[in-house]
Amino acid sequence: MPRMTPANCVKRKAPPMIPRYSRPDMVAIWSPETKFRIWFEIEAHACDAMADLGVIPRENAEAVWKARDVEFDVARIDEIEAVTKHDVIAFLTHLAEHVGAEEARFVHQGMTSSDVLDTCFNVQLTRAADILIKDLEDLLEALKRRALEHKDTVRIGRSHGIHAEPTTMGLTFARFYAEMDRNLSRMRDARAEIATGAISGAVGTFANIDPRVEEHVCDKLGLVPEPISTQVIPRDRHAAFFATLGVVASSIENIAVEIRHMQRTEVLEGAEFFSMGQKGSSAMPHKKNPVLTENLTGLARMVRSAVIPAMENVALWHERDISHSSVERMIGPDATITLDFALARLTSVVDKMLIFPENMLENMNKFPGLVMSQRVLLALTQAGVSREDAYTYVQRNALKVWEHRTDFKAELLADPDVTAALSPAEIEEKFDLGYHTKHVDTIFARVFGD
Amino acid sequence: MPRMTPANCVKRKAPPMIPRYSRPDMVAIWSPETKFRIWFEIEAHACDAMADLGVIPRENAEAVWKARDVEFDVARIDEIEAVTKHDVIAFLTHLAEHVGAEEARFVHQGMTSSDVLDTCFNVQLTRAADILIKDLEDLLEALKRRALEHKDTVRIGRSHGIHAEPTTMGLTFARFYAEMDRNLSRMRDARAEIATGAISGAVGTFANIDPRVEEHVCDKLGLVPEPISTQVIPRDRHAAFFATLGVVASSIENIAVEIRHMQRTEVLEGAEFFSMGQKGSSAMPHKKNPVLTENLTGLARMVRSAVIPAMENVALWHERDISHSSVERMIGPDATITLDFALARLTSVVDKMLIFPENMLENMNKFPGLVMSQRVLLALTQAGVSREDAYTYVQRNALKVWEHRTDFKAELLADPDVTAALSPAEIEEKFDLGYHTKHVDTIFARVFGD
Amino acid sequence: MPRMTPANCVKRKAPPMIPRYSRPDMVAIWSPETKFRIWFEIEAHACDAMADLGVIPRENAEAVWKARDVEFDVARIDEIEAVTKHDVIAFLTHLAEHVGAEEARFVHQGMTSSDVLDTCFNVQLTRAADILIKDLEDLLEALKRRALEHKDTVRIGRSHGIHAEPTTMGLTFARFYAEMDRNLSRMRDARAEIATGAISGAVGTFANIDPRVEEHVCDKLGLVPEPISTQVIPRDRHAAFFATLGVVASSIENIAVEIRHMQRTEVLEGAEFFSMGQKGSSAMPHKKNPVLTENLTGLARMVRSAVIPAMENVALWHERDISHSSVERMIGPDATITLDFALARLTSVVDKMLIFPENMLENMNKFPGLVMSQRVLLALTQAGVSREDAYTYVQRNALKVWEHRTDFKAELLADPDVTAALSPAEIEEKFDLGYHTKHVDTIFARVFGD
Amino acid sequence: MPRMTPANCVKRKAPPMIPRYSRPDMVAIWSPETKFRIWFEIEAHACDAMADLGVIPRENAEAVWKARDVEFDVARIDEIEAVTKHDVIAFLTHLAEHVGAEEARFVHQGMTSSDVLDTCFNVQLTRAADILIKDLEDLLEALKRRALEHKDTVRIGRSHGIHAEPTTMGLTFARFYAEMDRNLSRMRDARAEIATGAISGAVGTFANIDPRVEEHVCDKLGLVPEPISTQVIPRDRHAAFFATLGVVASSIENIAVEIRHMQRTEVLEGAEFFSMGQKGSSAMPHKKNPVLTENLTGLARMVRSAVIPAMENVALWHERDISHSSVERMIGPDATITLDFALARLTSVVDKMLIFPENMLENMNKFPGLVMSQRVLLALTQAGVSREDAYTYVQRNALKVWEHRTDFKAELLADPDVTAALSPAEIEEKFDLGYHTKHVDTIFARVFGD
Repeated sequence: MPRMTPANCVKRKAPPMIPRYSRPDMVAIWSPETKFRIWFEIEAHACDAMADLGVIPRENAEAVWKARDVEFDVARIDEIEAVTKHDVIAFLTHLAEHVGAEEARFVHQGMTSSDVLDTCFNVQLTRAADILIKDLEDLLEALKRRALEHKDTVRIGRSHGIHAEPTTMGLTFARFYAEMDRNLSRMRDARAEIATGAISGAVGTFANIDPRVEEHVCDKLGLVPEPISTQVIPRDRHAAFFATLGVVASSIENIAVEIRHMQRTEVLEGAEFFSMGQKGSSAMPHKKNPVLTENLTGLARMVRSAVIPAMENVALWHERDISHSSVERMIGPDATITLDFALARLTSVVDKMLIFPENMLENMNKFPGLVMSQRVLLALTQAGVSREDAYTYVQRNALKVWEHRTDFKAELLADPDVTAALSPAEIEEKFDLGYHTKHVDTIFARVFGD
Repeated sequence: MPRMTPANCVKRKAPPMIPRYSRPDMVAIWSPETKFRIWFEIEAHACDAMADLGVIPRENAEAVWKARDVEFDVARIDEIEAVTKHDVIAFLTHLAEHVGAEEARFVHQGMTSSDVLDTCFNVQLTRAADILIKDLEDLLEALKRRALEHKDTVRIGRSHGIHAEPTTMGLTFARFYAEMDRNLSRMRDARAEIATGAISGAVGTFANIDPRVEEHVCDKLGLVPEPISTQVIPRDRHAAFFATLGVVASSIENIAVEIRHMQRTEVLEGAEFFSMGQKGSSAMPHKKNPVLTENLTGLARMVRSAVIPAMENVALWHERDISHSSVERMIGPDATITLDFALARLTSVVDKMLIFPENMLENMNKFPGLVMSQRVLLALTQAGVSREDAYTYVQRNALKVWEHRTDFKAELLADPDVTAALSPAEIEEKFDLGYHTKHVDTIFARVFGD
Repeated sequence: MPRMTPANCVKRKAPPMIPRYSRPDMVAIWSPETKFRIWFEIEAHACDAMADLGVIPRENAEAVWKARDVEFDVARIDEIEAVTKHDVIAFLTHLAEHVGAEEARFVHQGMTSSDVLDTCFNVQLTRAADILIKDLEDLLEALKRRALEHKDTVRIGRSHGIHAEPTTMGLTFARFYAEMDRNLSRMRDARAEIATGAISGAVGTFANIDPRVEEHVCDKLGLVPEPISTQVIPRDRHAAFFATLGVVASSIENIAVEIRHMQRTEVLEGAEFFSMGQKGSSAMPHKKNPVLTENLTGLARMVRSAVIPAMENVALWHERDISHSSVERMIGPDATITLDFALARLTSVVDKMLIFPENMLENMNKFPGLVMSQRVLLALTQAGVSREDAYTYVQRNALKVWEHRTDFKAELLADPDVTAALSPAEIEEKFDLGYHTKHVDTIFARVFGD
Repeated sequence: MPRMTPANCVKRKAPPMIPRYSRPDMVAIWSPETKFRIWFEIEAHACDAMADLGVIPRENAEAVWKARDVEFDVARIDEIEAVTKHDVIAFLTHLAEHVGAEEARFVHQGMTSSDVLDTCFNVQLTRAADILIKDLEDLLEALKRRALEHKDTVRIGRSHGIHAEPTTMGLTFARFYAEMDRNLSRMRDARAEIATGAISGAVGTFANIDPRVEEHVCDKLGLVPEPISTQVIPRDRHAAFFATLGVVASSIENIAVEIRHMQRTEVLEGAEFFSMGQKGSSAMPHKKNPVLTENLTGLARMVRSAVIPAMENVALWHERDISHSSVERMIGPDATITLDFALARLTSVVDKMLIFPENMLENMNKFPGLVMSQRVLLALTQAGVSREDAYTYVQRNALKVWEHRTDFKAELLADPDVTAALSPAEIEEKFDLGYHTKHVDTIFARVFGD
């Protein structure tokens, strides 16, 4: 029978390192060093408040700040924790090594570990949100630039993967902009949701600590005091936070799938950046794979996978159970680091992606003129042709185009039934691309403002 | 080999009936009658706008309103759809039967089916949100009433299911109030997210219809025009909407689990309402089961199950594919109807639930006075006893209580080491419940305002 | 404050009707009539076993079978339930109306409601599994037929949506066959998992009923006795069952996505069946949408959405709580009905789908011969050309094809560096499609047997 | 605008380290060293097979084995990959540094990267499965031992958290045994599902490599050749694998929740191991928290969170896209490492958990004798008392017990209506615990065999 011993079992208390798809600023938020630094600030500010309230001596509060510039020694804290079996006590012990045991003796007075842990976690999530907000702003900038650049680049709009009516590449970028702008707004709401702190004691009654300590600490850390906490900050806030990350990730997938479709060999209307000059890849220019956006598709699944566990975390038993903790040790770093990486990668892809307008026109004309068949059908009925007859006229010409790739307009012009109803000029007009792009400016004004 | 025939296969186009856990007002939103009524309004308002723009004759627009008071015949529309194989065309055909074929000939001009379907779906979700908002307001009222009623009803706070420090039942209700108040705010945001409409044509370019038609229709239906749509309204909105429902559901589970715990035979601090006078159930008064809150626990899982499919719906191909549709036909009604039912059931449970204050005191004193051991420990160290000695003193007395259920205070008063450090009055003071409840008013003021 | 009253709240006890995407045989399994019929059989067989054991009189057991051919009156049972507030009691009361109150008085003796409900649910799931197994067998037949039909129909294989090397359409069907054959095997395992029954009393101790009653009932219903139950059959079985449905659904999505890709306007290598002769759709032959497979994509999401709730159902409190029940009332019918419908729809799509071999060749030659560039590169290095030089030779010719759509083979034959290393015949051989299809028979033998 | 540069972006190609909740043997499976070792074996065995087939020279195949005992230098391979931007090429380059460039020149001939990557991944998952199978066997051993130990330890069975009828602690362990035994069987199936390999080339046609190479490599690695692969091994296998992990995790949660309930202050029928002698924790003996099982509850959520992404991975585009890859880089290690840790932790908890039989009896008698009220009710009606009267008699005595905690049996014996129907001996007999435990041996025989 196996036994759980230090030798065969590692429970990592320090925040996890996730060196897969990550960027250093976000990773740094989840480092043990950052965590201990935040713990320090919580404790030090709490001491200040307690000194203000006359609960502890002023000099003891001031003494704590001697550790202001200390980079806490993670290995040393781990060492102490191996003995104390308690992460916060280990930290406090180490802090006392810097501050002096005597001077430090009022640190953490009346507080419970969760006061530190939960407030710290929300500081980390708030900082993570700040990075994600910046990521979204960067992405929006790239999307806007590409939207303006390709405002009038005509391509076929597709429903069901099938050619429908013309649209423009700029509208595609613009709708991604609008979607990500909504995500920016959601992310800001999510940040506000999570920017709370609690210093309220073992069951949230402030029995051993004055509520004004909480107010002071939160104020200093840029947080709002949690109006009512138990031992913990209520987890509906975190559920809403991670749900928002899941929505943002789904939008990333949306853009990624569009680009993957554009890069298909048969479509080739766009591609992740590559340089023809490069050796290697260019030996097989047709074999340039959209691996970045495929990767983003997978990363979106992973960010989404945090949503349900975060929701399952809401129903804690009574004033708290600790089932949420292992979940958050994983999804806290994993979901934010992955989403940060994904947003930055997407920004880079959007920023540099290749657009092939000629191919767009070629695709649109795969069955020359056929995408205009609906307009012609409508024009015929409006010109007084019965619905049945109009169908028949359009159908017989459309089938020629479908089967022989002849030109639909030429076929129509050669069909006496059609020309009996519509003049050549009228037929010609139905093939005007400007008809489809006439409101692009209106839409751009809606999305980007005037 | 089986063949899909009308005989062995029913694809129900009409909104589903879900007669499981449902309430009629929410069910009505998803009825075919409601849907056709909304379709009618969209088409009729669109005609008005087109008449205003001079695109269609005024009299044709006015003629459509002849059907203003018609209750559309769902069976007849189904009959037509069996021929046309297209739900919107079937409806339009039926509408023409009321309006007159000639008068109706401009109805839907320049529009695409999705203009009607998507705008209608958002009207339905918006109305569903209105009911859910009302549900939350009702729940908040019940929670507030119970919170005030039990503001000072002392019970033991528990972390990990283990007795920690005293709190009050009112604080429990108050934190549920605060949580549901956040949910109310989230639900209002979700409503705003989803209250958009689109009348923008086959790929969202307004090629065949003026944007002012969209503006007019949205205005009349209480919606905001979607700034940029494709053939469809972007699905990140819906993902955010259903994610919010999932958060609300998780909070329902949170309250449900608390009540289920309270009603456990060994705890019995509260219970779903039952009357002792009733025949039957009262034959076994100990066997009153928290079936309503257990049911809510399950319903929460179901509402949450809509979240991931809604997020998977975001990444549609190009200007739309229809993969989202079957998902939404199910989760649209299912998630809103279930959540409405769950909120109403929870309100009823909260409103009527039995609270047993005597049992709360009895539970708190299962090991008499032992929940105060931490305060005593702190007091001893503050009185100058070393940490080791303080532990020893507390431990030896606590173990007596643990093993023999004697009274902790009495044991302390009889321990000369303890009384050497603390006076009887000081010891007595550590067992004062008022110490733990002194900030309840502060917290209530934070939650409910002054 | 709203109150839950019969007027404003409907808790449907009868199995739900889900008339969305459904087929009648599967729907019938979940009808109230079927449920009551199964309940009857459980009770009647239990009486037989109790009579065999001498626990109840033989004539009472025999009397129960008077209801053998009764179609139970659902409305009447609902009426009784409105009074008794208990579904099983309502049924037993109604049963007694058929059997006679005196004769029926030993029915259900020593049993608990869950004995009936859980055993019935597993009978329903087992029957649902039988239909799904048949569905899979039908699908396999269609896939095999299409695989054999298109064993040698060459198309380009694609990785990342980009042309890679040639393969055949038959291999595509064959791999779907192999995947669905694994699903058939999983489905059979899932059926075995769920084909258990329990008649073990209030907490599973058989205190009031002999285990031999359980054995007899299970034997008659084609079930295996659950080795150890509590009040309920353990829910890990159901979690495994619904997880299997989720895997099958994901495979449906896999095939659906392939077909959707094939039908894209630019690809057009296949399509869901449509007839050119049809009026209407053929007016715009280019606008035939893969709506069935898009629908399947959405349905797959819905079947998958049952997996997590089913897993959350496993951790019931002690000997049971009833949180699983509302979940199962929904996912039981929903997931099986939807999957049955989806499998049948997929079979129909596969059976009738159009395959366009000419377009496959045309697509493969979009950049004429370029898909063979890797073979040429390899051949050059094998002929002693350095890796750098080989790259250069291939690259300069490939770029011409990429840019001007000239023929790659012709370019190579005109390149003296290439022809210095490879003879014309050798070059020619690199473009032989047979090279790529030479092991198709081997693979078919693996998949379909010899 | 941020740019993705080596400086600000780390895409870790090497298998991730997840030092959270982990054990070294499982972590080792996912180390870069293990991965490269498996890659080496795949390549070396493939060379052997190719030499056997006469495709490459025997001496080159033999030369590869010079690296048999090499521990591959991960840093060096990373260094090469920084240049080549391709993990497999980097490895092959490094391998050539050991084998000699000339000798190594046939390594990987005709193979595609996925042949190596996918086969390696399945080797890793198979080995992970082996550990998980061993974990389950260890857990079963602990559960069986505790079941036998407490076969006759009577405790109250609970439905809805409410006292129902007596059962035994041994039955609780026995049902967990049966559940985990089913999981063992599922895990073995999952292992068989995933133990396949593929060496089939760019699109799975074996165009450039003989199928016998695949057979040889698989044979040597303990795998079965994948009957039909594309560029990748089909992902329904992986979906089924991770779904199984999700079911196992849900069963862990089931046991964890039971133990958490047992340890509640008010219940206290069992507890995670702690020693009263310990300093610290024993100062507050009532405050021993079930943190290990709470942790397991959270870990179960995390393992389950891999299920949906794994299912979303099934629908790859055509012969493969790489969206699955980032998902698997995370869930491969995360889910298996977490589940391994959780199983081992659970085994330790079960093995050492404290059981408090006296408290079980005390709890059962919270309302003395009341749990027998249903038996008494039944006995009264069987003795000829009408159902109404029987209810009345039981109810009036039960209410006394409920309100005053008197003894139910004593109340009954003092009630003349009751004693008119039942003799004292008959009443006495209804309180015999043996009535409830008489079939425990039968159930144990079913679960553990005779």
